[in-house]
Amino acid sequence: MSEPGTSEQEPSVQGDSPPGRTDEDAGEGTQSSHRMLGFSDALLSIIATVMILPVTHTEISPEQQFDRSMQRLLATRIAVYLMTFLIVTGAWAAHTRLFQVVGKIDDTLALLNLACMMTITFLPYTFSLMVTFPNVALGIFLFCVCVITIGVVQALIVGYAFYFPHLLSPQIQCSAHRALCRRQVLRIILRGPVLCLLAAVFSLFFFPASYLLMASVVFLPYVSKAASWCKDRLMGRTEPTAHPVELITLDLHEPLSKERVEAFSDGVYAIVATLLILDICADSVPDPKAVASDFGGSLLAALGARGPRFLAYFGSFATVGLLWFTHHSLFLHVRKATGAMGLLNALSLAFVGGLPLAYQQTSAFARQPRDELERVRLSCAIIFLASIFQVAIWTAALLREAETLRPAVRFGGPEHTFMLAKLALYPCTSLLAFAATCLLSRFSTFIFHLTQIAVPCGFLLLRLLLRLALAGLRGLRGLRGLARPQRGPLGGADANADMQSPLLPAPC
Amino acid sequence: MSEPGTSEQEPSVQGDSPPGRTDEDAGEGTQSSHRMLGFSDALLSIIATVMILPVTHTEISPEQQFDRSMQRLLATRIAVYLMTFLIVTGAWAAHTRLFQVVGKIDDTLALLNLACMMTITFLPYTFSLMVTFPNVALGIFLFCVCVITIGVVQALIVGYAFYFPHLLSPQIQCSAHRALCRRQVLRIILRGPVLCLLAAVFSLFFFPASYLLMASVVFLPYVSKAASWCKDRLMGRTEPTAHPVELITLDLHEPLSKERVEAFSDGVYAIVATLLILDICADSVPDPKAVASDFGGSLLAALGARGPRFLAYFGSFATVGLLWFTHHSLFLHVRKATGAMGLLNALSLAFVGGLPLAYQQTSAFARQPRDELERVRLSCAIIFLASIFQVAIWTAALLREAETLRPAVRFGGPEHTFMLAKLALYPCTSLLAFAATCLLSRFSTFIFHLTQIAVPCGFLLLRLLLRLALAGLRGLRGLRGLARPQRGPLGGADANADMQSPLLPAPC
Repeated sequence: MSEPGTSEQEPSVQGDSPPGRTDEDAGEGTQSSHRMLGFSDALLSIIATVMILPVTHTEISPEQQFDRSMQRLLATRIAVYLMTFLIVTGAWAAHTRLFQVVGKIDDTLALLNLACMMTITFLPYTFSLMVTFPNVALGIFLFCVCVITIGVVQALIVGYAFYFPHLLSPQIQCSAHRALCRRQVLRIILRGPVLCLLAAVFSLFFFPASYLLMASVVFLPYVSKAASWCKDRLMGRTEPTAHPVELITLDLHEPLSKERVEAFSDGVYAIVATLLILDICADSVPDPKAVASDFGGSLLAALGARGPRFLAYFGSFATVGLLWFTHHSLFLHVRKATGAMGLLNALSLAFVGGLPLAYQQTSAFARQPRDELERVRLSCAIIFLASIFQVAIWTAALLREAETLRPAVRFGGPEHTFMLAKLALYPCTSLLAFAATCLLSRFSTFIFHLTQIAVPCGFLLLRLLLRLALAGLRGLRGLRGLARPQRGPLGGADANADMQSPLLPAPC
Repeated sequence: MSEPGTSEQEPSVQGDSPPGRTDEDAGEGTQSSHRMLGFSDALLSIIATVMILPVTHTEISPEQQFDRSMQRLLATRIAVYLMTFLIVTGAWAAHTRLFQVVGKIDDTLALLNLACMMTITFLPYTFSLMVTFPNVALGIFLFCVCVITIGVVQALIVGYAFYFPHLLSPQIQCSAHRALCRRQVLRIILRGPVLCLLAAVFSLFFFPASYLLMASVVFLPYVSKAASWCKDRLMGRTEPTAHPVELITLDLHEPLSKERVEAFSDGVYAIVATLLILDICADSVPDPKAVASDFGGSLLAALGARGPRFLAYFGSFATVGLLWFTHHSLFLHVRKATGAMGLLNALSLAFVGGLPLAYQQTSAFARQPRDELERVRLSCAIIFLASIFQVAIWTAALLREAETLRPAVRFGGPEHTFMLAKLALYPCTSLLAFAATCLLSRFSTFIFHLTQIAVPCGFLLLRLLLRLALAGLRGLRGLRGLARPQRGPLGGADANADMQSPLLPAPC
């Protein structure tokens, strides 16, 4: 029993947190914010993604045609899901930037953060309400009140952190312009809520103005940045205006914390994978009475009838898992995530969140064979969109590769081609599958399942396949080179050719 | 465009991963396992918890009495949920210990881990099947096949890691007994699957043996530990037998990685909080036609009718959030999580997972007023069990406080009483609420909601309340001390009294 206050050398114990990340500074009651932010990321990612469930639960009874009105209903619900996803992701991004201000937390900040989480969880509901009742003032009003409440709680967090400066991040603590910093942070945090306050007021007598004001919340950062860029150009300034406090903006180009982007993405992938098994567990345990009456008591037959669902489940889980795998591989090489990468990541995740819909569609093959073609195409489209935005993240990173990427994967680096191959696998195969269903529409299901099995094998053999492809390419270039007069020894010409074509990196 | 292979000094960039945790060792293609393990924890925690949904979706129509058969159905489903939760948590714990062997991962290990995840996600389904059809061989067989497949994939992971020793954790890499270590790890991993293989064989002709074998998978580690303890005692050995390779066991007392326990717990809390909002979003957006017909077009009236659901939601979210908060506070002071703490944590989380059930019950107050009392009591019981197991974790930690806890919270430490107060708040208030409903059964709903509002305020004011309580206690002791002859100055006697009663720590 150690006496209170005695400092002692504690022997290092297996399982201790890594050095440099002490959880508690007991004297001040402050704590590392790491776990709380991880919890917030998990919560927000799940909130964003579960809004796909109303879409998957859109009852399409077997007698109903997959006709225009059904397509329209589905399209509306998908649009609502996408917008809700992006709204929650926006709230998450704001939360990320807010906690760049805060370095450590204490109990009060942890509780305030919980209040912030609670208000953010209400965003999807109020948004759905607003969309269902677009002409009713109350819908708009409630959504705006939700946004205002979030802003107020976040302002409280900022105010509290600045009131106890030891809670601030080291940069801001040591800054000479702390009051200026606080004003700027509050201005950014309250910008959206103030616009929503105006929108709430306008909703009482003039709807279109409300919707315009709410849309401006989204576009204002971009508009103001474009405006300042134009102003700089007009005044002949080639460098952006120096600002004493540039620590926090909602600028598209400012970095997001890479750890938080990864945590948020992992949450989305995890909940999507789980939604798939949930559908299985909920519906696929046969009822004993049904087994006795319909299948003569044979459980095997009852399960066999559900075979396509399990097949679809394995294929979909493999898809989600491999999309996570490519995301993981990509972010291993990312040093810093810019705002543009964050936005493209959100779009990619939004379509990953649509995968349960693809699963549900493909698992209904046996029941509704005539719609097979549309279902396969929908699934291919969702997978294509989810994966092509990953390629877009990669492209955005390449545009500023000195900052964002590690040397190995930059253009011309040894791992560049392999990374490109990994990222390109899903877009190419889903496009191929889509094209194949256009040509061989009768075998669409078979093609789809074949693709779902082929892709994992493709990943496992990717390095081998890539070497073969590159060897083949070199062989072709060698043949072309033989046709022209040589300038030097074959090895020298090849080496020159290699250095001139960064697409052919050193053998991987 | 850097040339391949050139090493250069990269300026430190804001947003970089913290030093000491480089993501990729490009030369060997190995990566830190941190993110993959976080993803696995998120996935498994969600899998474990969503099995509460079939319970909450047990349709209790308003006309039906909450009678014995309904209670029995509910109880059966709750039992299945609890067992599934503990099974998945067991699989997660095995995964944790498996990856204590692996230090770094590469692409192949990441893909193998995805395969492991996919097989684990099938555990709840096969278990539900087995429980629904207890006398059908196929049910037992499929469950055992699932466990065997998990074992095989994990054995592949171990084999792969030992085949490429640079992937192993540093302790094992440098160990002289690597082959012995591998044999022991494989023996532990395959112990359960081998027993399930036997169970699968027995299921074809003799069920009880199958169930017995499967139960032994759970109890075998405890039985073997008890047996070796008895053997040591009989042979007069007071120290446990020294074993050259004690790096990995499934011993109850071996530590789990604290980070993974926190990540798994965060996943459970996050999904539970989300399940609550999901119920709201799914059912509580009024249908425009219904609003027009039932409420005369007034959205406000339609929402007002759902008022109790929102109230119940806020209360339940506050409960989940504050239970997370106490868990977070507790683990801040934990240095090492023992196996016993891990088991108690799993039990606490299992009951946290039952909170959506409590929410669903309490939100039905308005519709089914006659069952209010049972519903409130059920909710109080669930909250009590969830929080009392947190106290149990704390107690288990105190039993080995030199290893498990930081000095500040050990018995007699300055933060000890405050931590105890935090942990005791929920058990006490839920017990009080339960007792109050026995005395004032007519006001049970009011009592319940009052409690849900009072507790957050209690947390915010806890330090203040504790100081008042301790001052009160000291005042009482002072009064008693005045009645006895004093031994020294009042301050000295007080100081002595304080040191003799570690329950009165230094003012917090």
